Amino acid sequence: MSSWEKLTEEQQHQVEHQLQILKRGAADIVPEEALKLKIIKSVVTGKPLKVKLGLDPSAPDIHIGHTVVLQKLRQFQDLGHEVQLIIGDFTGRIGDPTGKSETRKQLSEEDVKRNAQTYQTQLSKVLDITKTTFYYNSSWLGELKFDDVLRLAGKMTVARMLERDDFAKRYAANQAIHVHEFFYPLMQGYDSVSLESDIELGGTDQTFNILMGRTLQGAYEIKEGQVAILMPLLEGLDGAQKMSKSLRNYIGINESPNEMFGKTMSIPDTLTLKYFELTTVLSFEQIEEMRQGLAACTIHPRDAKLNLAKTYVAMYHGEQVAEEAVQHFLTVFQKGALPEEIEEVSLSRNDLDAERIGLIKLLVQLGLQASNGEARRSIEQGAVRFNEVKITDITVQITPQDGDILQVGKRKFVKIKLT
Amino acid sequence: MSSWEKLTEEQQHQVEHQLQILKRGAADIVPEEALKLKIIKSVVTGKPLKVKLGLDPSAPDIHIGHTVVLQKLRQFQDLGHEVQLIIGDFTGRIGDPTGKSETRKQLSEEDVKRNAQTYQTQLSKVLDITKTTFYYNSSWLGELKFDDVLRLAGKMTVARMLERDDFAKRYAANQAIHVHEFFYPLMQGYDSVSLESDIELGGTDQTFNILMGRTLQGAYEIKEGQVAILMPLLEGLDGAQKMSKSLRNYIGINESPNEMFGKTMSIPDTLTLKYFELTTVLSFEQIEEMRQGLAACTIHPRDAKLNLAKTYVAMYHGEQVAEEAVQHFLTVFQKGALPEEIEEVSLSRNDLDAERIGLIKLLVQLGLQASNGEARRSIEQGAVRFNEVKITDITVQITPQDGDILQVGKRKFVKIKLT
Repeated sequence: MSSWEKLTEEQQHQVEHQLQILKRGAADIVPEEALKLKIIKSVVTGKPLKVKLGLDPSAPDIHIGHTVVLQKLRQFQDLGHEVQLIIGDFTGRIGDPTGKSETRKQLSEEDVKRNAQTYQTQLSKVLDITKTTFYYNSSWLGELKFDDVLRLAGKMTVARMLERDDFAKRYAANQAIHVHEFFYPLMQGYDSVSLESDIELGGTDQTFNILMGRTLQGAYEIKEGQVAILMPLLEGLDGAQKMSKSLRNYIGINESPNEMFGKTMSIPDTLTLKYFELTTVLSFEQIEEMRQGLAACTIHPRDAKLNLAKTYVAMYHGEQVAEEAVQHFLTVFQKGALPEEIEEVSLSRNDLDAERIGLIKLLVQLGLQASNGEARRSIEQGAVRFNEVKITDITVQITPQDGDILQVGKRKFVKIKLT
Repeated sequence: MSSWEKLTEEQQHQVEHQLQILKRGAADIVPEEALKLKIIKSVVTGKPLKVKLGLDPSAPDIHIGHTVVLQKLRQFQDLGHEVQLIIGDFTGRIGDPTGKSETRKQLSEEDVKRNAQTYQTQLSKVLDITKTTFYYNSSWLGELKFDDVLRLAGKMTVARMLERDDFAKRYAANQAIHVHEFFYPLMQGYDSVSLESDIELGGTDQTFNILMGRTLQGAYEIKEGQVAILMPLLEGLDGAQKMSKSLRNYIGINESPNEMFGKTMSIPDTLTLKYFELTTVLSFEQIEEMRQGLAACTIHPRDAKLNLAKTYVAMYHGEQVAEEAVQHFLTVFQKGALPEEIEEVSLSRNDLDAERIGLIKLLVQLGLQASNGEARRSIEQGAVRFNEVKITDITVQITPQDGDILQVGKRKFVKIKLT
């Protein structure tokens, strides 16, 4: 490659250093060769690359799954590149044009602003927020008129659109795809046109949308199309499905230290290294060392996981809190003792029937379980203790007293307060 | 039907009278029941119906094929209804958003204005132009912003779009359909929303687009969706394909009386009645009389066609000119004589080779034939005469003199003038 040979040795070293960091953990880079060329150019000219990430404008509640791309962004920042965070408020303000879905509510301008503020607060835990530029895509998309929109739509074929996984499936299953839905990838792509992004980050489920940005940049004659860096989707606590709020298998970065610690300890051992690699700032060498230790059985899987849990608490609550969380966890779960502080929850005497209440109903009433079904299963699985006594009979009637302690699994405790 | 019974006898008569006229010749009315209801309402309230026709913004050259819908519009006018002519200048001003087709040139605002003026002149030969309102769809479509466009697109599914004949064929054949193409029917439909049209006219090839208007009016909550009146497509001179300029099988309403007359006489006898029914103002009874005469052989097919040709010339050039055209035709074609006036065409001596020129080249040079191939076929078919002598040898060399007459078929003559 001719441009490579024109570099000084020092520059070659810089390029290789950046590539090693940036490629780490990525599921795919499309096209990989273009990433190298962009980094070479940046090293030679001293001009940072523009690295884009699109954000949903709804109220953020960032979890460890999200931090996979955020950590990659942070790596770009640490290497001197420029981060473009795009709040998709234009899409969000539109709501659901079919008017059929109630879940997709139209966001007001104030909602969007408030959510952006929350993003800023939450993202500052991972990114260097002083080096991060926020954009609202309404500022360019909102200005487009019908003929601009037609020009945009003219860049893409219907067949190509229907190749997108979810469209293909719905079309094959005779499920309605409304014409405006084609515009979601087109809008995301147009954001890259508007900001002339060099790189866009996203999960592998964003492949189609991100490559759309590359295609549209070509169609709008922005010389070098953006490169897609596609990060793996992180499995949630269940070790199977993608971590997400709706599946309740997530670790939120705003959760309490003990909750965060406990949840982390509940992931399957097989995921510890992946979590480390994708969501912490541990160096390549540190992770390699751990990998070898685990393989050689010189590191116990539980200790690696404790280390991960402590790392998270340190990242999101500080070093000192992390130490305390370790102690708390060891006290409660390792030794089987009750935690020092247990939340008191009120129980109205009106819910009792001749001072008694079924255990299932009690679990739901106290908020320990979301539904009767869930409560029944927990009891049957032996996860429920009343004053430290395991109860597996789902028909049991309890006569609760002030101070009684009800426990589900290893981490949920409440102290009853009759009112 | 309850609303029917509430009408006076006089009103019922009016409704039936209108329906009889308006349904005449239509290939389809969708839904037919709704047309009746709209007419009832108009008769009761005295409010005219709004009857819409969309026009291509490119330079008009109206032919008899176009007049099928125009005559229907005229019938609406004569019954007191209101005609909305929509010049699709918004679509036309956009040109081809893919930039791939050179044929679809972008029209300037002046082009559009000039073409609209031409429309007005040409349409005044069929419509009562004083009772016709022209609209430019740019005046509403040009104002739509991206979110309006998304709302519009959200009313329609991709699957429904792909049901449109040409889309379905192209999609099945893996030919590109660009996303913006979906907007052509959506725009046409939105025109009906904007103007709250009661009825839209078009050829049967417009069925999808016109029903889109009905659907969109429903989606935008205009109470009663428009009714589609779909007129048959008129076969051209060849008696087979749809009359169109590109197929050169048309009779233009601006053509000279003799050209118009001659072309009409060239249609197959079997089409005479259809042409009468769809493109003239002859009454139901007059056409019925002719139908019976032809069936009983009391009217000769040639005479019916002469009558049609004369009718056209009378409609577009006046009664007196029509008489002359009949005489001209009878002189030239019935008696085999040369026409009284023959166009003189210049032939440069530079085109001669030692004062001689091949017959094929001569035919093309004089503009009698479009290509060498066409000229060759005409000669071989015995259609070419030089000074009234039939020539069937394609290799013949001619030594042309001033005043020589070259003839192709029954209607094309030129007199040579050497320069």
